[in-house]
Amino acid sequence: MLAAIDLDRLIADTEQEMLGLIERVQDERTRELYEMVRYHMGLDGDAPRGKRMRPLIGLLAYQSIAGDHAAALPGAAAVEMGHNFSLVHDDIEDRGAERRHRPALWTVWGTAQAINTGDTLFTLSRMALYRLQEEGFDDARILRLMRLYDETCLALCEGQFMDIWTSEHDEWMSVDYYFDMIGRKTASLIAGSAEAGAVLATDDEAVIGAYRRFGWALGLAFQVNDDLLGIWGDAAATGKATSDITTRKKTLPLIYALAEATGDDQRRLRTILAQDEVEPAPAEVDHVLAILERVGARDYTRDQARAYRDRALAELGSVGTVEPASMERLADVVRSVISA
Amino acid sequence: MLAAIDLDRLIADTEQEMLGLIERVQDERTRELYEMVRYHMGLDGDAPRGKRMRPLIGLLAYQSIAGDHAAALPGAAAVEMGHNFSLVHDDIEDRGAERRHRPALWTVWGTAQAINTGDTLFTLSRMALYRLQEEGFDDARILRLMRLYDETCLALCEGQFMDIWTSEHDEWMSVDYYFDMIGRKTASLIAGSAEAGAVLATDDEAVIGAYRRFGWALGLAFQVNDDLLGIWGDAAATGKATSDITTRKKTLPLIYALAEATGDDQRRLRTILAQDEVEPAPAEVDHVLAILERVGARDYTRDQARAYRDRALAELGSVGTVEPASMERLADVVRSVISA
Repeated sequence: MLAAIDLDRLIADTEQEMLGLIERVQDERTRELYEMVRYHMGLDGDAPRGKRMRPLIGLLAYQSIAGDHAAALPGAAAVEMGHNFSLVHDDIEDRGAERRHRPALWTVWGTAQAINTGDTLFTLSRMALYRLQEEGFDDARILRLMRLYDETCLALCEGQFMDIWTSEHDEWMSVDYYFDMIGRKTASLIAGSAEAGAVLATDDEAVIGAYRRFGWALGLAFQVNDDLLGIWGDAAATGKATSDITTRKKTLPLIYALAEATGDDQRRLRTILAQDEVEPAPAEVDHVLAILERVGARDYTRDQARAYRDRALAELGSVGTVEPASMERLADVVRSVISA
Repeated sequence: MLAAIDLDRLIADTEQEMLGLIERVQDERTRELYEMVRYHMGLDGDAPRGKRMRPLIGLLAYQSIAGDHAAALPGAAAVEMGHNFSLVHDDIEDRGAERRHRPALWTVWGTAQAINTGDTLFTLSRMALYRLQEEGFDDARILRLMRLYDETCLALCEGQFMDIWTSEHDEWMSVDYYFDMIGRKTASLIAGSAEAGAVLATDDEAVIGAYRRFGWALGLAFQVNDDLLGIWGDAAATGKATSDITTRKKTLPLIYALAEATGDDQRRLRTILAQDEVEPAPAEVDHVLAILERVGARDYTRDQARAYRDRALAELGSVGTVEPASMERLADVVRSVISA
């Protein structure tokens, strides 16, 4: 039974769903626009395509209740396109020149086309959902899903605002603010994916709530784990050449250390982080690393990642299910994305 | 009866609807985000706010059939916010530093926040529509409206793509391409507004179709008229300091002239337009103006604007209505936005 669920198949079906949508809307004069969409999504041949974590979560959540994944594919296409719209714009906003080991969209086609392609992807993500009508879902359920999707997208924009805001207004940042920010920016879409899968499969609000909490905890664990890897991870595995300390990115370990360090450590940390223009010297990086260890920032971050991972697994365990194989796969996804 | 419909009241109600939505979603940590939204929308005190043409069209269309405008306000808020999302991004894309006589959003808060604020406005525009449920519209009607809205937004993005594309690929431009482009970029949202008003008010597909065609013709007339004013309009009235010839913008008169001019005129026109870096000298501007007159570009453009205006009025006239006062107001709007 376990072997019967092939994640590659779910990914391939999701990609087919997205390609089908693009195929239906494109015409002679918009070919290049949809070429950009396919390029960014990694749908142009054998390009690197990302983990497709969000659609997988949604499809497995649906399948774990309904027994099959096919009817939920429009929802999977929507969350993946929505996620990718935000990546297109994020890359422009923070001048990220690379995405999945190739040039970011804006570096190839320019900022103007890239902004507009992000908007196109955002619109397509919504249009994907209308195919749920063909799959036989009733209007009330589709409307509920759309509202969930729009509220999720608003949280995404708010989280992104908070991220940019604190990059210019340091004084707003705190551990509490951080968790609110990543909740909106990262956890909301993963929670939304899991919840959406459940909403399509059942009317049982207790089950829907459990899937949402599962996704939320997974999303937080995922981001906190990412922060951990950003400093102590293997560069080859993360695909990032530089440590978050070199870029002075305010991720959880640094935010925690700024809150906890005292005396000399506190002063040193602030001095090193305050220099905005040049990269910190290797000795300064070592110094920050030593302070992080001293205040327990590494342990704290790892413990947080593990705690949220465990909460995600516990939420999964709390749900009675008709389809143990997909539940097991969901747990696999949790364990595979959290290395802590 | 005619005096009973106060356009200022419709505008004020639409603004109240938008402010109410923003009020419901904002919190302590996102205050500045929604401040940006209000700034761009002209909802921050006595700021200049645009004509609000699209919500007016939608509300009057609804009222002309249903007799009142109140229930359609969520739809009016959606189209106005959707229109404004596209303006926020357009200003970044073509580096437009001013919008409605004040600094464009991106020049005040920076490109990153402005892109994200546009995304926020786009999301809010969708969320506005859920209040239609409170107004008693059934799910099927709301879903139909949402699909219309999303298809309209896709056309908007496609039109914007075509606009940017031809700014870099001159050879694609033609009169035919131009009408396709402004159809998607401008007419679709105005047609969508009129159609949406009708969809909310009636099941009569013939009436819905007539309102759509009305909005489409009005949208084309509006854009072509704008092109006319961009060259021959009074700078004070249009709010534009420089003529479209000075900026070498490929609007309908120039596109038509490039297609129609022969011999020396054709060569001169191409030579003057090909210099991308410096503004054309006053003598060159005069030369272009003379060529435009010679090939009949001014007459052609004015005739097109008038023809679409008349078609819009004819579509209105074709609809039997319960509310002549709002029909008359719709006709007023047509006449007020088309000066040709």
